[in-house]
Amino acid sequence: MGEAALAGEHAVKPLVSASSAEGLLTLTMANPPANALSIAMMEALKGALERARDDAGVRVIVLRSGEKLFSAGHDLKELTAHRKDTDRGRAFFEKTMELCAGLMQTIVRHPKPVIAEVDGVATAAGCQLVASCDLAVASDVSRFATPGVNIGLFCSTPMVALSRNVSRKHAMEMLLTGEMMDAETARSFGLLNRVVARDALGETVKGMAKLVASKSSLTVKIGKEAFYHQAEMNLSEAYDYTVRVMVENMLARDAEEGIGAFIEKRAPEWQDK
Amino acid sequence: MGEAALAGEHAVKPLVSASSAEGLLTLTMANPPANALSIAMMEALKGALERARDDAGVRVIVLRSGEKLFSAGHDLKELTAHRKDTDRGRAFFEKTMELCAGLMQTIVRHPKPVIAEVDGVATAAGCQLVASCDLAVASDVSRFATPGVNIGLFCSTPMVALSRNVSRKHAMEMLLTGEMMDAETARSFGLLNRVVARDALGETVKGMAKLVASKSSLTVKIGKEAFYHQAEMNLSEAYDYTVRVMVENMLARDAEEGIGAFIEKRAPEWQDK
Amino acid sequence: MGEAALAGEHAVKPLVSASSAEGLLTLTMANPPANALSIAMMEALKGALERARDDAGVRVIVLRSGEKLFSAGHDLKELTAHRKDTDRGRAFFEKTMELCAGLMQTIVRHPKPVIAEVDGVATAAGCQLVASCDLAVASDVSRFATPGVNIGLFCSTPMVALSRNVSRKHAMEMLLTGEMMDAETARSFGLLNRVVARDALGETVKGMAKLVASKSSLTVKIGKEAFYHQAEMNLSEAYDYTVRVMVENMLARDAEEGIGAFIEKRAPEWQDK
Repeated sequence: MGEAALAGEHAVKPLVSASSAEGLLTLTMANPPANALSIAMMEALKGALERARDDAGVRVIVLRSGEKLFSAGHDLKELTAHRKDTDRGRAFFEKTMELCAGLMQTIVRHPKPVIAEVDGVATAAGCQLVASCDLAVASDVSRFATPGVNIGLFCSTPMVALSRNVSRKHAMEMLLTGEMMDAETARSFGLLNRVVARDALGETVKGMAKLVASKSSLTVKIGKEAFYHQAEMNLSEAYDYTVRVMVENMLARDAEEGIGAFIEKRAPEWQDK
Repeated sequence: MGEAALAGEHAVKPLVSASSAEGLLTLTMANPPANALSIAMMEALKGALERARDDAGVRVIVLRSGEKLFSAGHDLKELTAHRKDTDRGRAFFEKTMELCAGLMQTIVRHPKPVIAEVDGVATAAGCQLVASCDLAVASDVSRFATPGVNIGLFCSTPMVALSRNVSRKHAMEMLLTGEMMDAETARSFGLLNRVVARDALGETVKGMAKLVASKSSLTVKIGKEAFYHQAEMNLSEAYDYTVRVMVENMLARDAEEGIGAFIEKRAPEWQDK
Repeated sequence: MGEAALAGEHAVKPLVSASSAEGLLTLTMANPPANALSIAMMEALKGALERARDDAGVRVIVLRSGEKLFSAGHDLKELTAHRKDTDRGRAFFEKTMELCAGLMQTIVRHPKPVIAEVDGVATAAGCQLVASCDLAVASDVSRFATPGVNIGLFCSTPMVALSRNVSRKHAMEMLLTGEMMDAETARSFGLLNRVVARDALGETVKGMAKLVASKSSLTVKIGKEAFYHQAEMNLSEAYDYTVRVMVENMLARDAEEGIGAFIEKRAPEWQDK
């Protein structure tokens, strides 16, 4: 097991700590009190994710919080401070929003599955983080909102991830009212895979992560990439594309081993294990 | 409070009455017995919506019915009368369908949120009206259907709005069977935000409308427009677009005020109030 | 009532039997023990569907299984046997995946509604078959999975149909874990229209099929085609397209008859009956 503190470029204290065991990389955000997604926090998260990309020891990534909430989104004080810039903050706001959009797409484009482990409040870009992960599990006390509308800043980047998880009427209600939604409601809307009691959260996520980690990493990488690509195509394009993906997957060593093992009724030995 | 009867171009009696108070514009359809979406009714609705576009006194629009049902869709007698035209009605059918599609897109493209308040049956283009609104609340006796298939006219324009609210299997069941669906089922499918007892309907909608009306209208306008635009983009286009939206939103006065008020723990004063 | 065994090109025994009564064509798969979608089975299914295209006696198609499960997907032994080909099976894998994608699109593009009647396990391309049908009803003991990840072959073609029925987080959980999902969960996710007791399955499907078969076949054909086309368009394109569809539908004889019958409060007489 390795443990390391990953500091963002401009951070003095570690904002994201990484713990790795049995193929699971656990990234824990610690930016008290609200786990704000400051520039430093977003760079620390993005950096940790990018380092995990080619790390053969990492098969699944868990994203969690060491604070009492998951994340309250952007660092409003940091943003506000830059209103004094000669451009009224435009350049800094661009940097912030582009980094945020880049972080979210790093999760979606990551070859390894990312699971959100949510305990507490996840709002605005914090809710977007949950929506951007491949899977999400929350404790039953967790709550979710896109409350930007309450402070004059509509959650327009969070809506990109939210509206790809949740139906239109539900997403619009969250965006227009800014109100908190409990975990069970979030699950029924499609934002979460599972809601469990607080003391079962860690074990539930670990169980799900280990299950996914037991598969062939090559196969998972092929499939995750194909999933988000085909989602943006029309039906015939999606089939033309996934047919090619399936043929290449069939010719890969892990499919030969996996299918052979299935026919011979034995456990497969993945190449990348 | 203002109250006015808005007559469609060809209508003698008022088909849509408008009542406005505290930033809420309530449009009440009254075309007995079925609130049919005749040419005159659609023109009256579209006109009322267009007049509200630049009316600073209107922050949220509620669309409801004064009849025992919400709306049964197109006026079949009006359509049928035009079968005697020399072109067998083609020109009139085109006018009707284009006006209907225009009305629905006027709701979606409207800068102000539109909430459907449904009490009773909403079928065909009436169901499409509900699906086209940003939010929808119904009384528990309300029922929904796309029954065109029963009369040889498939609900092909209603399906555009319906299938953007409801999953494919559910939409296809409604479209192919034409059967009625109760309000609770419609809610579980994603067509409605909330179902309440009949005597709580008005207050529930008013509460939701007032909550949305308390936000910055500029912020809501920015967000609503961004929502439907990004929904039609792929992920990277949607992020490129919403990053630009967020930066402009940050530089608007209401975001500066709203974020400032939040940091200073005071209520914001929106510019447009 | 007609009954016929439809053999695939390379099959000796009948893999798909066809039974037709009262406008319903029932296709029963029988490829023991797992109803594997071998080349012969896919060709038999595709052939039966194509023959039904212009058969005026067929108004609705029901797809079911005569085995203890619905279908376990591709024939892994058949695929594995071709690893000995000089190209390591590439050409055969391409043929298999293209035929499979073609079969699924034959269902979606078919002018007549296809209803899946599921009793037992439906996995991988078997689950994809269910997702590709317009409507799906399952017995309460049925179970669903996309378990390709367990054998090194991610369910990349099944995900195309699955992700157009089920939200992203749910689809990703099925794809990444490969775990079985019970029928009630599959229904709540949007994969199924209805779940019923095993002994009510046949009658439930027959009732739904007869209801759809009682409509004008021309109207149903117009509507089904429009549904899947508009689903791939943006909002304004979808309305431009469906407005044209509605106008042509209005001018068709069955709409004139259907609307006339509705106004005159009598049962319609469809031209194609």
